[in-house]
Amino acid sequence: MSERVTGPAASGGAPTLEELRQRLVDFAAARRWEPFHTPKNLAAALSVEAGELLEIFQWLTPEQAAEVMSDPDRAHRVRDEVADVLAYLVQFCTAVGVDPLAALAAKIERNEHRFPVPGAASVNPNVNPDAGDQPL
Amino acid sequence: MSERVTGPAASGGAPTLEELRQRLVDFAAARRWEPFHTPKNLAAALSVEAGELLEIFQWLTPEQAAEVMSDPDRAHRVRDEVADVLAYLVQFCTAVGVDPLAALAAKIERNEHRFPVPGAASVNPNVNPDAGDQPL
Amino acid sequence: MSERVTGPAASGGAPTLEELRQRLVDFAAARRWEPFHTPKNLAAALSVEAGELLEIFQWLTPEQAAEVMSDPDRAHRVRDEVADVLAYLVQFCTAVGVDPLAALAAKIERNEHRFPVPGAASVNPNVNPDAGDQPL
Amino acid sequence: MSERVTGPAASGGAPTLEELRQRLVDFAAARRWEPFHTPKNLAAALSVEAGELLEIFQWLTPEQAAEVMSDPDRAHRVRDEVADVLAYLVQFCTAVGVDPLAALAAKIERNEHRFPVPGAASVNPNVNPDAGDQPL
Repeated sequence: MSERVTGPAASGGAPTLEELRQRLVDFAAARRWEPFHTPKNLAAALSVEAGELLEIFQWLTPEQAAEVMSDPDRAHRVRDEVADVLAYLVQFCTAVGVDPLAALAAKIERNEHRFPVPGAASVNPNVNPDAGDQPL
Repeated sequence: MSERVTGPAASGGAPTLEELRQRLVDFAAARRWEPFHTPKNLAAALSVEAGELLEIFQWLTPEQAAEVMSDPDRAHRVRDEVADVLAYLVQFCTAVGVDPLAALAAKIERNEHRFPVPGAASVNPNVNPDAGDQPL
Repeated sequence: MSERVTGPAASGGAPTLEELRQRLVDFAAARRWEPFHTPKNLAAALSVEAGELLEIFQWLTPEQAAEVMSDPDRAHRVRDEVADVLAYLVQFCTAVGVDPLAALAAKIERNEHRFPVPGAASVNPNVNPDAGDQPL
Repeated sequence: MSERVTGPAASGGAPTLEELRQRLVDFAAARRWEPFHTPKNLAAALSVEAGELLEIFQWLTPEQAAEVMSDPDRAHRVRDEVADVLAYLVQFCTAVGVDPLAALAAKIERNEHRFPVPGAASVNPNVNPDAGDQPL
């Protein structure tokens, strides 16, 4: 039911994000869709697709949500919406010239300073332990 | 202003999605945040962050939106929100056991059949040329 | 903590939706904001604000979410985001010439046919009892 | 194409928000849907529906978006999504005990102080004229 997502097997033959990005660029170019792919439109489309992913979960209890992939129809919808979100995110990044992997690496580094591990030597006293402050 | 997003330089030393995924897993584990990272919560958080990215563009004209990265403050916000969206997408995928790169590769293949290139031998007559039918 | 939301007291002196709509029109006109208030921008802003309302709940358990109004700060945020969502919905409707109360009344009537009460004489056999089919 | 949204005709015989709220309460009770209607679920559903409204506009130019109601199919979708957003907003407010009209009235008053009319006697020097600061 679940694809392996860790370990060497995950990358064996799997496409890289950059390869998929190039396929999306070619796909849109072949269909002459570039004029629609403005940063504003792609940001809207990304938000719409994230809503469609959330829709799968909106009426589920936490317990039902944890089992979402054991229902084949829901599992297909989840993979489909994950793909749409990632596709629009990658296309948005191409339109504005941002490298999403570099942006995430930089953010993780900022968050390691902003949210020090509890019990570590220098705890930031300004961090509210409330869950609302979770960055990730 | 814009990072290089194509060519060999982009991957030279840049982290892979799998490396970033592992750092996010470790980050959450060190802070004992896993109990919050249910599929339903992460789908909600992903949608919230996609909304924050859209917020940057909501009052901009298409022309202003095309120049968004020439304003340093806006450019920083764009990179920051891209990172948040990608972080939650990756963490959601980890929680449900989906490989986002495999999901996107499968979707691109389905779309290549669903939206044939105009003028190609067998055009699907059921495809409405209206932009609303764009998958990506 | 909670305002009375039913009974005659609720409407005694309270503004109507139409009165609030007119105040929003005047407010935007006085600040010359009408050029920003296009249907597309307002639909984006509505979605962004709905995300901000959801953000309050994203890490809460169902039990914590049920008690959200007992925390004064969260209660204020909830009221503030409800106001923003309603404001943009009303302004969107003004921009496209739709009466939101008439639209909702028509939808309720359609749903009364689409989702007959279980056990009533003519149950629609096509309705999937799965929660995903809930319209409202 | 557009309903009258101003003037006495708009309220002549039209339902009030409170009347529609009561119908939604009765509708959910008859179908035993109350257990699904938690604050968190309704906030998620509201965000999902706001995304569906935005979806109508995502690929449209500002000019096409301004004419959205001249296409009967799109006009129907717009009314349908407006109804869904308002239905979930009202049901969310019922679940948390907030009066949406009172919340909006209070917010408009706060915004009248926060965003004084340009040229009026005491202009708030802290207000950034950038459109990003628009509250409504």
